[in-house]
Amino acid sequence: MPLLFKNPRIITSTDDYGADVYCVGEQITRIERSIDPKSCAPGTEVIDASGKYLFPGFIDPHVHVYLPFMGTYAKDTWETASRAALVGGTTTLIEMICPGKGDEPMAAFETWLSKASGVSSCDFSFHMGVTRFDPAVERQFREIVKRGVTSFKVFLAYKGALGVDDRELFHTLRLAKELGVVVTAHCENETLVSELQSQLLAAGKTGPEWHEPSRPPRVEAEGVHHLMTFAELTGAEVYVVHTSCDEAVGEATRAISRGVNAHIEVVLPHLILDKSFAERPGFEGAKYVMSPPLRDKQQTERMWNHLRSRAVSTVGTDHAPFDFETQKVMGKPPAGDFTKIPNGIPSVENRVDLLFTHGVCTGRIDLHTFVDAASTQAARVFGLHGKGTIAVGADADLVVYDPGYRGAIRAKSHQMATDYSAFEGWETKGRASVVTVRGRVMARDGEFVGKPGTGRLVPRGR
Amino acid sequence: MPLLFKNPRIITSTDDYGADVYCVGEQITRIERSIDPKSCAPGTEVIDASGKYLFPGFIDPHVHVYLPFMGTYAKDTWETASRAALVGGTTTLIEMICPGKGDEPMAAFETWLSKASGVSSCDFSFHMGVTRFDPAVERQFREIVKRGVTSFKVFLAYKGALGVDDRELFHTLRLAKELGVVVTAHCENETLVSELQSQLLAAGKTGPEWHEPSRPPRVEAEGVHHLMTFAELTGAEVYVVHTSCDEAVGEATRAISRGVNAHIEVVLPHLILDKSFAERPGFEGAKYVMSPPLRDKQQTERMWNHLRSRAVSTVGTDHAPFDFETQKVMGKPPAGDFTKIPNGIPSVENRVDLLFTHGVCTGRIDLHTFVDAASTQAARVFGLHGKGTIAVGADADLVVYDPGYRGAIRAKSHQMATDYSAFEGWETKGRASVVTVRGRVMARDGEFVGKPGTGRLVPRGR
Amino acid sequence: MPLLFKNPRIITSTDDYGADVYCVGEQITRIERSIDPKSCAPGTEVIDASGKYLFPGFIDPHVHVYLPFMGTYAKDTWETASRAALVGGTTTLIEMICPGKGDEPMAAFETWLSKASGVSSCDFSFHMGVTRFDPAVERQFREIVKRGVTSFKVFLAYKGALGVDDRELFHTLRLAKELGVVVTAHCENETLVSELQSQLLAAGKTGPEWHEPSRPPRVEAEGVHHLMTFAELTGAEVYVVHTSCDEAVGEATRAISRGVNAHIEVVLPHLILDKSFAERPGFEGAKYVMSPPLRDKQQTERMWNHLRSRAVSTVGTDHAPFDFETQKVMGKPPAGDFTKIPNGIPSVENRVDLLFTHGVCTGRIDLHTFVDAASTQAARVFGLHGKGTIAVGADADLVVYDPGYRGAIRAKSHQMATDYSAFEGWETKGRASVVTVRGRVMARDGEFVGKPGTGRLVPRGR
Amino acid sequence: MPLLFKNPRIITSTDDYGADVYCVGEQITRIERSIDPKSCAPGTEVIDASGKYLFPGFIDPHVHVYLPFMGTYAKDTWETASRAALVGGTTTLIEMICPGKGDEPMAAFETWLSKASGVSSCDFSFHMGVTRFDPAVERQFREIVKRGVTSFKVFLAYKGALGVDDRELFHTLRLAKELGVVVTAHCENETLVSELQSQLLAAGKTGPEWHEPSRPPRVEAEGVHHLMTFAELTGAEVYVVHTSCDEAVGEATRAISRGVNAHIEVVLPHLILDKSFAERPGFEGAKYVMSPPLRDKQQTERMWNHLRSRAVSTVGTDHAPFDFETQKVMGKPPAGDFTKIPNGIPSVENRVDLLFTHGVCTGRIDLHTFVDAASTQAARVFGLHGKGTIAVGADADLVVYDPGYRGAIRAKSHQMATDYSAFEGWETKGRASVVTVRGRVMARDGEFVGKPGTGRLVPRGR
Repeated sequence: MPLLFKNPRIITSTDDYGADVYCVGEQITRIERSIDPKSCAPGTEVIDASGKYLFPGFIDPHVHVYLPFMGTYAKDTWETASRAALVGGTTTLIEMICPGKGDEPMAAFETWLSKASGVSSCDFSFHMGVTRFDPAVERQFREIVKRGVTSFKVFLAYKGALGVDDRELFHTLRLAKELGVVVTAHCENETLVSELQSQLLAAGKTGPEWHEPSRPPRVEAEGVHHLMTFAELTGAEVYVVHTSCDEAVGEATRAISRGVNAHIEVVLPHLILDKSFAERPGFEGAKYVMSPPLRDKQQTERMWNHLRSRAVSTVGTDHAPFDFETQKVMGKPPAGDFTKIPNGIPSVENRVDLLFTHGVCTGRIDLHTFVDAASTQAARVFGLHGKGTIAVGADADLVVYDPGYRGAIRAKSHQMATDYSAFEGWETKGRASVVTVRGRVMARDGEFVGKPGTGRLVPRGR
Repeated sequence: MPLLFKNPRIITSTDDYGADVYCVGEQITRIERSIDPKSCAPGTEVIDASGKYLFPGFIDPHVHVYLPFMGTYAKDTWETASRAALVGGTTTLIEMICPGKGDEPMAAFETWLSKASGVSSCDFSFHMGVTRFDPAVERQFREIVKRGVTSFKVFLAYKGALGVDDRELFHTLRLAKELGVVVTAHCENETLVSELQSQLLAAGKTGPEWHEPSRPPRVEAEGVHHLMTFAELTGAEVYVVHTSCDEAVGEATRAISRGVNAHIEVVLPHLILDKSFAERPGFEGAKYVMSPPLRDKQQTERMWNHLRSRAVSTVGTDHAPFDFETQKVMGKPPAGDFTKIPNGIPSVENRVDLLFTHGVCTGRIDLHTFVDAASTQAARVFGLHGKGTIAVGADADLVVYDPGYRGAIRAKSHQMATDYSAFEGWETKGRASVVTVRGRVMARDGEFVGKPGTGRLVPRGR
Repeated sequence: MPLLFKNPRIITSTDDYGADVYCVGEQITRIERSIDPKSCAPGTEVIDASGKYLFPGFIDPHVHVYLPFMGTYAKDTWETASRAALVGGTTTLIEMICPGKGDEPMAAFETWLSKASGVSSCDFSFHMGVTRFDPAVERQFREIVKRGVTSFKVFLAYKGALGVDDRELFHTLRLAKELGVVVTAHCENETLVSELQSQLLAAGKTGPEWHEPSRPPRVEAEGVHHLMTFAELTGAEVYVVHTSCDEAVGEATRAISRGVNAHIEVVLPHLILDKSFAERPGFEGAKYVMSPPLRDKQQTERMWNHLRSRAVSTVGTDHAPFDFETQKVMGKPPAGDFTKIPNGIPSVENRVDLLFTHGVCTGRIDLHTFVDAASTQAARVFGLHGKGTIAVGADADLVVYDPGYRGAIRAKSHQMATDYSAFEGWETKGRASVVTVRGRVMARDGEFVGKPGTGRLVPRGR
Repeated sequence: MPLLFKNPRIITSTDDYGADVYCVGEQITRIERSIDPKSCAPGTEVIDASGKYLFPGFIDPHVHVYLPFMGTYAKDTWETASRAALVGGTTTLIEMICPGKGDEPMAAFETWLSKASGVSSCDFSFHMGVTRFDPAVERQFREIVKRGVTSFKVFLAYKGALGVDDRELFHTLRLAKELGVVVTAHCENETLVSELQSQLLAAGKTGPEWHEPSRPPRVEAEGVHHLMTFAELTGAEVYVVHTSCDEAVGEATRAISRGVNAHIEVVLPHLILDKSFAERPGFEGAKYVMSPPLRDKQQTERMWNHLRSRAVSTVGTDHAPFDFETQKVMGKPPAGDFTKIPNGIPSVENRVDLLFTHGVCTGRIDLHTFVDAASTQAARVFGLHGKGTIAVGADADLVVYDPGYRGAIRAKSHQMATDYSAFEGWETKGRASVVTVRGRVMARDGEFVGKPGTGRLVPRGR
């Protein structure tokens, strides 16, 4: 059914103007000062956007949905995660395919794809996790790239489990350079983490408040410096995921000014939460355990600065949806310890609203930076053609956004499958009134209204 | 006359797509996959842009046109400069209003405005030069800002002549902060320049090749550091014009990562020329004297890096059109010396083509960075509403660009009024086929075809 | 009378050993494992130093004694200041000669010299203050250097009053380079200070707690960067006095690693006091007003780090002895304001003991660093031949130091002429048991026992 | 036999004075302005040092003597190496004990000790190589430290062969912190080296000129950054051996200013040779192959700057004596390649003279820095009690140095066992006239004159 958006204030990375937008099929086909509904195809739905923003559909370049963990799984499925995303204004997700070290990449690709295909209600793509590198898997990676998954993900942390060693890192980057794809990387030195964890546990420091001291800023900065060196010597394009602190961003920007081709991501929690949350009594801190960890309060302001200056390109979430009562609890002392707490803060649903509330409404960032960081840059860096913009020929992934809405976050009413919200009771300013994916209305005013399972793997360029 | 651009490949800061663009009156009114000319108003001119790019009109945020100098004037008038700009794809110029220390700002504003109004064929705006600061001039600056000139320009160099002292700098920045306007600054420490000049001249080093040693990178970095400190302590938004070297950019980026609100400009000559040009024998080096001076060859590659990484926001020219035979010659030894050579390299006509040739065609920057740096960022930073983009409601300032064109630069055929070109004989790849300003075709294939004097002062926001 | 020091543990910058030290006339003439008193000249005084350290006489390279201020004078004379120094283990002071802008340097030199000659009980030298620069004063500076005052002092702060402008700074440095003398510099940007002061006062912020916000770290860092640039371009050797913060030290060390010939001083207050002292209620904060101001607590630890790493060469005091009740009070609101508080924290008497107590006894620095920073480096940088070491032929300026002594600081019993101590009641560990200057015992166990007025101008090299 | 040094100019890290020095037994027992030979013990040898410097015996903290390599051995023995050292003014060597990964540390310690004991004519100590780390070897390291070898050596390069992994590095540093010993480290990322080597060889780049491109500055800076991170998180004291470039020194100094306890060494070749030597035709470049490699010419001046500013503490050699004709040749193409060339530039004999010639005589460093870097700092950092100074009670390791001597370096006449000199034909200014070790004259005017095998393991503190 064709759509006609009437009278919105259109906001993109660079523009701010009033015009009507008409969509036929899956794409935007016409933008004009004023489009007469009568000139549109029969059956066109007219969406009144007066007094509201029209944003390109938001993109979260860093989520986990299908996530096996210690014999269990993270709580979301693509059904719940994609609904949560859409209700929150996010129309495309990029998930990490995460094979075990012994698994075949192609089989993992098929598995992860199968979890989303026909199930997800929003569009999606993947970062192909490189957890080992040898000639056999290299062939598979080439094939996966051909199928449109044009980014890799490596862990400098979690060596032994998911992490790669230096040789594997070098060859992954060299392959990426050859293929023209981006390598995303989780940058923490795993040995330091594991040694510091051992020291803390040996000293009886087992609660969630010890998670941050087990991976201090310098451990993350070390990881970033390491990645930058390898990027410099291979010429590959890299993307540092979830930088949490000034030290990490500093290592990346120093490298960039030497000529390294690198991008920097921050994730929502590092902008609005700090380590005092993880220090909450009664094991509630476990809700706030993720890696890199939440940092000092003053670090969050520095991260906003880096976002405002555009040193940081993108804002993702690192959504990893574990329940508090049944999963986070695995790390509860005395039986458990903080290293057993599943990592992650569920937030795919809240990213757009909280970034708007704490970024735009406070004046920390302007509307263009908001759109650029939460949508456009993810599309550009990862080659999501047709996404991240409002232009003729682009996918009709659109968000009519009501800046006047006031609400509050509640776990009991959220779409995510987790039993808690890290932002319980937080006030939000603004909400998506209408969310479309390729011309289909998927959410309205906080409710999912779309046809489930209509999301699609986005064909990506390089 | 309405215009219809058929079949272009539209390139903006963020987008790359095919669609038709229809303009009525002065603005873009409709963008659609395919627009049937028959559906357009009678008399619509159809411009075939098949196989060509459609760019937003380019903006040069740093030019001098009306420029009194030692009893004479720079060669261009707004008539010649605006023609040169248009032929070269530039549709908006921002000139500096440059009152003497004793002049009244408002009178200077009126003078500079009168030189352009009704004369310029392209659109224009101004940076208001602050060459002294006291309560009387402050009132005038407030009035000038109200009239839409929402940026200031200060010189940390040329103290005594145009330069401001620290107290004036502080108060200018404080006023700018209050008014929400940007302060652009020429950053070189003038005392060091003048002392080094004296030392060189005393040592008999009088030729143009001594211009660069009289203002080495550290002198420029000092100026940038100084501006950054003042910006940090006043909270003002600043813009460093014509950074020429890694040291200067480094001081700015370090400040930006501390939270200073600063933008960085590079000008064309510092990307494609180096100091060996100023060392050419027989006083030919004088053609290449500007300030900050041309630097070592390796600095040019670093500036490209900073442009690619987007540390540098904009590419201007610092166009300052002095003749070689009658004006540059004023600094010819033995009668003269290098400090008497009028500064400037005429290049407003060549910026777009040379940036395309040496940037895009060599792969140093992509098409989006090209548009962003040569058009969009200037519009955003300086509040040139309706400029720097291709969107419905934006001014119909458009450039149909033929990437297949091959040409060469010749002074005898250029539009600028100067008797030489700094790029004599250089090959260019690409050329503007059609250039429009607010819906009027002003240039075609290297020829000015518009109605002279139809340019307008652009109303600017903050 | 010859002296024989028996059984000390001798500590120098680099050595730690046991030997006897014999002094005849004014110098050390013999060092030997064990010297039989019987082999010494008749009348030799034997000083038992068993269980004690023998240090070279300490040197304070940064004091003010004769200090005219707003119609009055700082409280100390050379009589009281030199006694205080000696009791505290300091045997040589370097004072700043501080002519007004209109004064003749040579006359100022004679004035300052006359205040110390025949009055001071310790040895002394001067930094020649350069408060203006023209050919007439240049001739006088050359003469003063010939007379052994081989260092200059400039203020980048206090422009208009004592400060020099950029031209004067350049020429001072160039002269210093030619003469091979060091330029010491107080680095704060004076315009920023004066503007921030005005803003604070206008906002009713008049108490001593607003002194620090009126000259934040960035203002100091700006001054250091400025000096470094000028040093780099003239090739002169420079010495940054009283750096108070990481930002200032960082600017200097970055310059040093580019090849700038610079030294860094910290003064005692910035190591052991922080700005919370200046925030004490009831105007008591005025006791702690000096410039650069006391900083955040965390800055003090960073300064200890820089001292330990030897980035900081010397520890002085910037002793400036104003009374609290009659002088500091001049800045008391409502009549006064913080800008009227005479700057300075009297500490020439306490430097050695407090550095030992808070540096050596806490393990922050070792004994060698203690001696190096509080004695040897001042001698080396400023060419105080025969000082700062324990070696045959060196001046017999020696301190027998008892590390086991425990005491407390009290204004009522100190030697300084001021009516308060910034360290009232503070515990000290260690004290000078015996202090000699050129072979004469001047102090014992906290008492001055010498012949007054026997100090001498130290002949200095370059 | 007692020694009396008459009339020398004594130079130490901090002092410069004239006095006579008397030594009885192994130590300096008396320093006095003038010592009458008649007052000395019968049989005292009087050494006339008029017009000459008296320096403390020089210390080379970084040599290899016993060095198994691919089935053969480096050419020197302790007999030849110690003679070469002594003739060149070096009285103490610190060699690395280099067990294979499977070897027992204690057995290696005994082996290396046996090669030197009773054979070396100069004093010596060792850095204990840590090439693997587990509880069994930890016990042995504790024992070795008790026996006076109070420093470790790790390789971040050569992983698989000698290198340690991150876990081993962490535990080595933690043990060192506990024991209060220093960890010296060769910092290059080995994976990058091996991958770059493979790429170059695959491209047919097999000559010695490709050695430097296989381990560029960034590879070394990465190693330094890595070590600094681990030092910061363990609190251990570290010492970076043979830094070759500004990038590496920069990573260390940045860490030091954060508070990391680190020292920096440069070795002679990186001060006076550059990579053009390794590019000499006819495989002669192989003589100049060492790791980190010789760098660009401009890097050498930066290293001198870092030495002058004292950012660099020590100057060693990394003496590794392989023959050109029989050993370096193993890497000769076509059979061999540059990775097969034994690494090292023999220079233990030339360090002092070349540092004097190229450092002191050119004015790059002064005499104090010369002594400090080539002797005193090595003694302080490594706890060589009684070494590195001229003081009563110190070992009578003394060098009478004739600054007026002019000579040239020739392989045919040098003491080292290698068949070539990297400095063939180079002019030297200055030479040791007399060299003593613990009161015994060991060399005179370029000839070894001592009793062979009288060197001793130096007992070291922490």
